Amino acid sequence: MQTEASPLVDKFQLTEDHDSVFPKGVPWVRYHGKYNDLSINIVCPGKDSSLGVDSVGTVSVSLLTYASVQALHPDIIINAGTAGGFKAKGACIGDVFLVSNVAFHDRRIPIPVFDLYGVGSRQAFYTPNLAKELNLKVGKLSTGDSLDMSPVDEAAILANDASVKDMEGAAVAYVADLLKVPAIFLKAVTDIIDGDKPTAEEFLQNLAAVCLALDQTVTQVVDFIVGKSFSEL
Amino acid sequence: MQTEASPLVDKFQLTEDHDSVFPKGVPWVRYHGKYNDLSINIVCPGKDSSLGVDSVGTVSVSLLTYASVQALHPDIIINAGTAGGFKAKGACIGDVFLVSNVAFHDRRIPIPVFDLYGVGSRQAFYTPNLAKELNLKVGKLSTGDSLDMSPVDEAAILANDASVKDMEGAAVAYVADLLKVPAIFLKAVTDIIDGDKPTAEEFLQNLAAVCLALDQTVTQVVDFIVGKSFSEL
Repeated sequence: MQTEASPLVDKFQLTEDHDSVFPKGVPWVRYHGKYNDLSINIVCPGKDSSLGVDSVGTVSVSLLTYASVQALHPDIIINAGTAGGFKAKGACIGDVFLVSNVAFHDRRIPIPVFDLYGVGSRQAFYTPNLAKELNLKVGKLSTGDSLDMSPVDEAAILANDASVKDMEGAAVAYVADLLKVPAIFLKAVTDIIDGDKPTAEEFLQNLAAVCLALDQTVTQVVDFIVGKSFSEL
Repeated sequence: MQTEASPLVDKFQLTEDHDSVFPKGVPWVRYHGKYNDLSINIVCPGKDSSLGVDSVGTVSVSLLTYASVQALHPDIIINAGTAGGFKAKGACIGDVFLVSNVAFHDRRIPIPVFDLYGVGSRQAFYTPNLAKELNLKVGKLSTGDSLDMSPVDEAAILANDASVKDMEGAAVAYVADLLKVPAIFLKAVTDIIDGDKPTAEEFLQNLAAVCLALDQTVTQVVDFIVGKSFSEL
């Protein structure tokens, strides 16, 4: 979402790409520039052209990830965004989790092997030094296209052993895996799913403040990455 | 799925593209050739490279649709596939529905306007003459990433007024809309969702026979399209 990206665009002094690398008509937004020795691109799914809301969810982020990798050939992807957290897994509002594993919780295909394809469990790129240096909470991420959590979703999220739940991560991981680009996932907790407040309300209430925490962590991650090889991360 | 495409590849005498228009490493398969005066491409998501099962669902088909439109610039998309049908809406095994509207049933975002984005209701390209000429049943399609149907999915499918339920259509419609390509949806019923047989079992039992019915209809649709303008469809 745009709310998640704006402070980072300022911090890295990026400029918006008006002669887009993306096809005409898509709402995707790209900011780019140099930060220290790194060439940085921030891409956002943008606003749905009919409805005017942020293009959240797995379909939109898959397309954006695919098109961005094809156009920009990144060495690494950082999927930074907001998420719901489980207090039973130690999550608190404002925590930024470094994700160890991703999986889907709303793709149930009860046919042998198809069931595994549906869950789509994948490891994030392994960055033990990054986790230690930045003292980040590490946990698993479960992804689905709903902001709420139905009883069957809840069972799948439990099976995925998730600390955080979002609407994009596992789809980004699928595309990154398909195109063989290492991917790191940073998920900032806007709402406590197993708490007593309604998700949508808590999400909207905390969004702006939590995005600042997220962006601070993304900056620290980028600063940590500068000048290092993959094996040092 | 490959099972859905193979008889059509033979019928249209298409050849597989070995010097792929798609990026290296993706499992997507393309068959192409000339049939009467039409240049035809059949694209399939192919087998998941780790698990070996067909790459079903919205993420995979979105990527394939996007990449195909970018590479092949089609005048029209026909999304042909299998679906579950509702006998309460008059669906029988082997029926091929021409879809009037598509929507998602597993993208619940209970925030105003985001809720509409999640449902993603779209009209298929309007083809009244095609429906009449081929005497096809016309109905609405609801799409989700699960083969089964949870209680919350069922409520959303009812709200979508769906005759058929699949795992791809609304995602194809999203990408087609994004890139401004007209899209037709043909969905052949492999299983009756509101019947008394388990979906996975009935699906696998009927798959091969229903694919033949689907392919016959696709051929009739292509024969009908040849030489016509959009306004004649």
